[in-house]
Order: sequence, then C-alpha cells, then structure tokens
Amino acid sequence: MMDFDSVFSSNARNMKKSVIRELLKLTARPEIISFAGGLPAPETFPVADLKEAADRVFEKEAKSALQYGTTEGDNGLKEEIIKFENRQGVQPKPENLLIVSASQQALDMVAKILLDPGDYVIAGRPTYVGAIQAIQSYSAHVLGIPFTPERDGFNMEILEREFAKAKARGNKIKYIYVIPDFQNPAGLCWSLEKRKALLDFAYRKDLLIVEDSPYREIRFLGDHLPSIYQLDQQGENRGIVINLKTFSKILSPGVRVGWIMAHEKFIAKCVIAKQAMDLCTNVFSQKWLAEYMRTGKLYDTIKKTCDNYREKRNKMVECLEKYMPKRWDVTWTKPEGGLFLWVSLPHYINTDELIIKAVEEEKVAYVVGSAFYYDNPEHNAMRLNFSYSDPATIEEGIKRLARIITREIETYESGHRAKTSPEGQ
Amino acid sequence: MMDFDSVFSSNARNMKKSVIRELLKLTARPEIISFAGGLPAPETFPVADLKEAADRVFEKEAKSALQYGTTEGDNGLKEEIIKFENRQGVQPKPENLLIVSASQQALDMVAKILLDPGDYVIAGRPTYVGAIQAIQSYSAHVLGIPFTPERDGFNMEILEREFAKAKARGNKIKYIYVIPDFQNPAGLCWSLEKRKALLDFAYRKDLLIVEDSPYREIRFLGDHLPSIYQLDQQGENRGIVINLKTFSKILSPGVRVGWIMAHEKFIAKCVIAKQAMDLCTNVFSQKWLAEYMRTGKLYDTIKKTCDNYREKRNKMVECLEKYMPKRWDVTWTKPEGGLFLWVSLPHYINTDELIIKAVEEEKVAYVVGSAFYYDNPEHNAMRLNFSYSDPATIEEGIKRLARIITREIETYESGHRAKTSPEGQ
Repeated sequence: MMDFDSVFSSNARNMKKSVIRELLKLTARPEIISFAGGLPAPETFPVADLKEAADRVFEKEAKSALQYGTTEGDNGLKEEIIKFENRQGVQPKPENLLIVSASQQALDMVAKILLDPGDYVIAGRPTYVGAIQAIQSYSAHVLGIPFTPERDGFNMEILEREFAKAKARGNKIKYIYVIPDFQNPAGLCWSLEKRKALLDFAYRKDLLIVEDSPYREIRFLGDHLPSIYQLDQQGENRGIVINLKTFSKILSPGVRVGWIMAHEKFIAKCVIAKQAMDLCTNVFSQKWLAEYMRTGKLYDTIKKTCDNYREKRNKMVECLEKYMPKRWDVTWTKPEGGLFLWVSLPHYINTDELIIKAVEEEKVAYVVGSAFYYDNPEHNAMRLNFSYSDPATIEEGIKRLARIITREIETYESGHRAKTSPEGQ
Repeated sequence: MMDFDSVFSSNARNMKKSVIRELLKLTARPEIISFAGGLPAPETFPVADLKEAADRVFEKEAKSALQYGTTEGDNGLKEEIIKFENRQGVQPKPENLLIVSASQQALDMVAKILLDPGDYVIAGRPTYVGAIQAIQSYSAHVLGIPFTPERDGFNMEILEREFAKAKARGNKIKYIYVIPDFQNPAGLCWSLEKRKALLDFAYRKDLLIVEDSPYREIRFLGDHLPSIYQLDQQGENRGIVINLKTFSKILSPGVRVGWIMAHEKFIAKCVIAKQAMDLCTNVFSQKWLAEYMRTGKLYDTIKKTCDNYREKRNKMVECLEKYMPKRWDVTWTKPEGGLFLWVSLPHYINTDELIIKAVEEEKVAYVVGSAFYYDNPEHNAMRLNFSYSDPATIEEGIKRLARIITREIETYESGHRAKTSPEGQ
C-alpha cells in the first residue's frame, strides 16, 4: 500500500481543512437551527428570470455555450460587467478584467502568482478563512493586524509597527488582503478615512492590495463608500489594487462566476496562470449570466436581496438585544451590509468548546470565531449568519443561543464566586 | 508604477504561456482552415436533450442548483458516474470520486498536492501541453520518455535507464503522467502489454501513476482495452493510479465538469486542496449533467460522436495518403480514437517556421509539434485535429498542407542538390 502521507508536497502538508465546512456537515441535521453557513437566501434567487435567460442561451448560442471558451472570459459578459461597474463609478477596460470560477479561484490565483514559500500577507485579525487557506496552500504566512475598537478598519499604528518588525525580521511581505465592505466574518465596514490610509500605506511601502469585495453591493443601511480600487483609480492611479468580485452573493453562488479587476499587466499574468488551472470558466454560465444581465434585472435582484437581509439583520440584532445577557463583555457588531455578524463573549467562554453543547443541548449552531485567525486565535467569539434563516427561525435560534450562553456565564460566575468565597456564603 | 515583474512568485515566473492558445488567436480568421484547435465537433452536442435536462433542474431543484454545493461534488452526479464507470467494468465508491471543474483543474490539483519545487514527473515525449504547464506552475520538471517506434507506449528500456540516471542525480520523481487512450498530441494508444509493464514499473519504483483519460470513451476503431486504473483495481489493487476523466470530449467542454477517481486517501487530500481552489464545482452544471445522464442518452451521444470522428479521421488519413509526398520520412499516426493525429516530416523541416508560411501562403493551420515537449523539442512534427472540421474542409485543408510541405521539401532538396553538385548539373 502506498504511503500517501509521505508523497504529498510541502504545500499539501500546509493545507488546512476548513473548520467551517467540517462543522457544516455536523449541523446539517434538520432539527438544528444553524447560523453557521454562509449561504445566500435561496428566496432571493430569481429563478424564473434565470430560466428565461438560460432559454435564450439555448435558442441563440447553444453550440458556443457548450464549447470551450477563451481563458480571458466571454466578451459579452465582460461588456455587461463593465456597465455594472460603470454604474458604481468604476471604469475598467476589458483588459482589466478576467472572468474566474468565482472568488475562491481568484484568491488561489493571486496567492499562486505572488507567493513564494515563507512569504507573508498582511490580513485582518479575524479574516476570511478561505483566504487564509489559499495563502497556506502555497506555504506562505499571514501577518495578522487587529481592527480598531470602532471597527472602522485596521489599527494603523499596529500595522506600521508590525510591518516594521516583520521587515526587521527579514520577512518578505507581498500584499495586503482586505475585505473593506462588510467583512467576513465580523460584518465590519472600513471608513473612507481608513481606506485612504491603507492605500497611502501601500503606496509608501510599495505593496499590492488585494481588495476582496463579495458583499460590496449588499449594503442595506448607510451610504455607499468608494472601494480602495476606486480610490486608487480616481487618485494616483498606480494600479496596485486587485479587486475581486463575484456573482455568488448578488445573484447565485451555484453558477461559480466572478471577476478580477486589476492592472492589465497583472491580468495578463492571471490569464497564463488560469490556462494551467482550469483553461476557462464555465462557458454556459458566463453566457447565461450575460443574458440575465442584459435584462437589467440584476439591480432589482440586488435591491430585493438587500431588503431581505436588512429585515433579517434587524431581527437578529433585535433578538440579541432582547435575549442575550446584558453585560459589557457580551457584544455584537451591527453590520450595514453583508451576511454576517460577530458576537464577542466574556473572555472565559471558549466557543470552540461551547459549540458541542450548543448543538447537543440547544440544537443551535454558529461558526467558532477561532476559525478566522491564522495564528493565536481568540476563542471567545462566534460568527452568526443572518441571510439564510427566516425571521421566526432567527428568533428561536437566538433564544437558544442566549440560553446556553447565559448558562455558561452563570456556571462560571457561580464557580468563581464559590472559589473566591470558600466558606460557601 | 508598480514593477509587477519584480513581485511575481517563482511559480509565476516558471509559468509558460500556451503556444496553442496564442496560435488559436492568430488562426481565428474565417478564411483559414485550422486543424490547430482541440475542439469537439459542435454537431455532436445534444442540444435539445441538454435543454430538457436543464428544464428539469429548473423545475425540480432550481434553488439548490443555484446555491453552494459540497466540495466533494453532487451526490446525484456521483451516482450516475458510478453507473457509467460500472458499465466499463470499473467499481469506484463515492469516496473514490471527486467532481472537479474539468480535467485541467485535476492536473493543477494533482501537481499542487504532489510537487515541491525541483521535483520531477515522468511524462511522454511528446505529451499534453496543459499537463506540462501545470507541472511548471509549481516549479517542477518533466523527465521526458520517448515512445517506441510502434507507438504502443513508452520505450521501457529508456524509461528504466532515464529513471536510474535521474535517481543517481538525486532527482525526486513523484509520479508518472500518461494518456494511454488516444494520447494528445499523437493519438497513440498504449497496448495492454505496455499498460501492464508501466503498472509493474510503478509498483517496483513506488511511484504514483496519473492516468489522464479524456478521450478514453472516444474509441471509433479496434477493441477497448482496460485502463491502468482498472488493471491495478483488478490486480494487486494498491491504489496507486489516479484516473482523470471529463465530460469535455464525451459531451461538452463548456460545462467544465470532470472527475478524479483515486484511492480515498488521495481524494481526501484533493478535497482539502479544492476547498482553497474554488470551494466547489459549478452546482448547476453538476445537477444538469446528472439529469442528462439519468436519461441514459449519454451512451448514444458517445456512439454518435465516435461515428462522426471515425468518418473525419478516415477522411483525413485518406487525404494524407492522397496528397502528401510519398516518402519514408513523411508519416502520420492512424489513431483508433481521440481527436488528433501526428504528422512527422523530414528532419530539415522546422514546423515552428513553417506555420507562418502555412497560414500566410496557404491559409491552413496546425499546432507545432515542439509545443508538446518540456525540453529539447523535436521540430519536424505537427498535430492535426480532425474532430472539428467537416470532411470537405478536411480535404481542402490537407491539400493546402500537402502543397506547402511539398514545396518545402522541393526547395530543400533542390538547394541540397545544388550544394552537393556545385557545377549546377
């Protein structure tokens, strides 16, 4: 029998299983209310309109939709994406765009193109676990930067200090990875000031910024802010921002289509990388999405999705306020967009351990906060998804979650009191 | 301005553009008869049946087809693939299968999982360029092994010798890459004896075999032979063969779906790798293909495709016999399956140079043989695709090709005569 473990590459040995995807298997039982997934609400999928668009592809261009396509991506889809970006004030040319098999492929591609083993990427503490996995899969590391207490972006002082320390250690830092709009996992949104500060930092340190924007259009409260890609384009236009976009959250993840927007030299290298990665993105899906976009209905779908998520987010925040223990050390983010919020608990609660009890005793699930840290994870937080469940389920789920957290706090506090009062008074 | 060349990884610097894909751009003009592509015949795509299958997905399971799926792949599709493999005498379990975004992703994944920089892969001289690209994109190398004059597989003596020399040099050889059924580019098919010999070699040297089988079902002449995966499964069952399959040539490349069949331990590592590469394969396409396979019509489509390609292959071979110079050093393969044949020309003809003249003077295109060599390419061969053009176009294209080759030979020979007969007699 082949000893597989001995033949795997260093990269393969550095690959980490996604805790989330493993967790999702455990929580798939129907009696469990799960806030663990990251699924869009299926009721937002415009099935009838998508069917019509698919019918048109079959009518008009079935043969070419079933054939190989170019690595760069379908020109018709690129045209529609350019119009879509134009409406947001962004002006890409076709050579600034590469159609990819959704954002995770873009994260993999960017890591492959930029990272040698031992290199570093600056990213948030916490940050998207799929980005960490992609970086690890090329044997590179993450230099984690915490956010400000106001959660409006990186703590820039710590960024400057950690960067200087890393440089002094001889670490090679290749790019900064950020999700400025309604970050996964915490739902936080970078302020305009912080976006500008990060761009300025990247200019000064000659670093690329990988701006991951899967949730950018899913803003259901507050005012739209320019992306860092946009700030660069409207400012010095140095072309150092690589912007990752996807249809996964604004329309459908099942179609697996996204796009990279970047300097044409960077895109040219991506095209070569993609040739060896999957030749081209699903051609049928590309032509299908182009047909759907031509109807102009995507804007309406996004609006409806935002309305749907606003209601659910409000419900979840309202229930947290209603049911959770009222304490300074039990807090949650109140996102203005995206799919997630982040609950912080007293330092003595380890959510990695609590998840077992939550599933078994209360039939409710979340994602452990520690999954979103490259190293030195914090253990007293959890990510809750509000996009997938209906409002009644959200209420019931938060009730259950609040019960188990309340019990944990009471148990600890009574034990703590018992310990500090040995007389048992 | 960012100096992009300075920030790319070693892997990115080792990535090579596909000569073929660049060439295809040049030959896209309508007046050119191109045998350069590797496209399936669009008339073989069962558009009406595929539309019906897509309609059923919209009816029965639109919401889940538009949602995220598991990294492992859709269970319904796996069931159909198992039945499909069973009919060929192969018995995979679900845990032996991973659904991938077609074979190129599998080639990338296998290279990522197995190769460290500087490692070696044994592969044919010539071999599929996409496999070479995937290997290069992890800074690994190819140890090229020539085929026998009978073109029934590797020259096993050279394999033994080159392997021993590489080991003596300290090279780390990780796997053997082969396409036993109607290999791209030469259309050759490994004999049963050679398949067994390679498996035995791999057993003795403790090597994995990556058996790439995109054309396996496209046999239009001769008898079906067991795959090396099958020979291992029916014999010692050591689980060392990783078999790559795809819908690209048997149904449609545009849907970008394939599968890896391998030992469950290897598949488990692939799943972790795929999480970071693209999360999951296009869910709509997977459910759509499962629906189509449930009709049982895939077998008929494959039969029709084989009939179609047999006719075209016969036409191309017939025209080569009719129009090409009749010489011992102008030969071509006569494939029993697949999409390609391989023309070898006199040693003094460089097809890398000839292609310009062929396109400009005769409006006919092929792929230069040198593209299919990792190193020390042979320059006197070309790959011709017979699946895409209709028979009349094949005849006209081969006429043109024969004309330019005849001219080249005459020019050389008359110059050669002139040189050897300085008196000009």
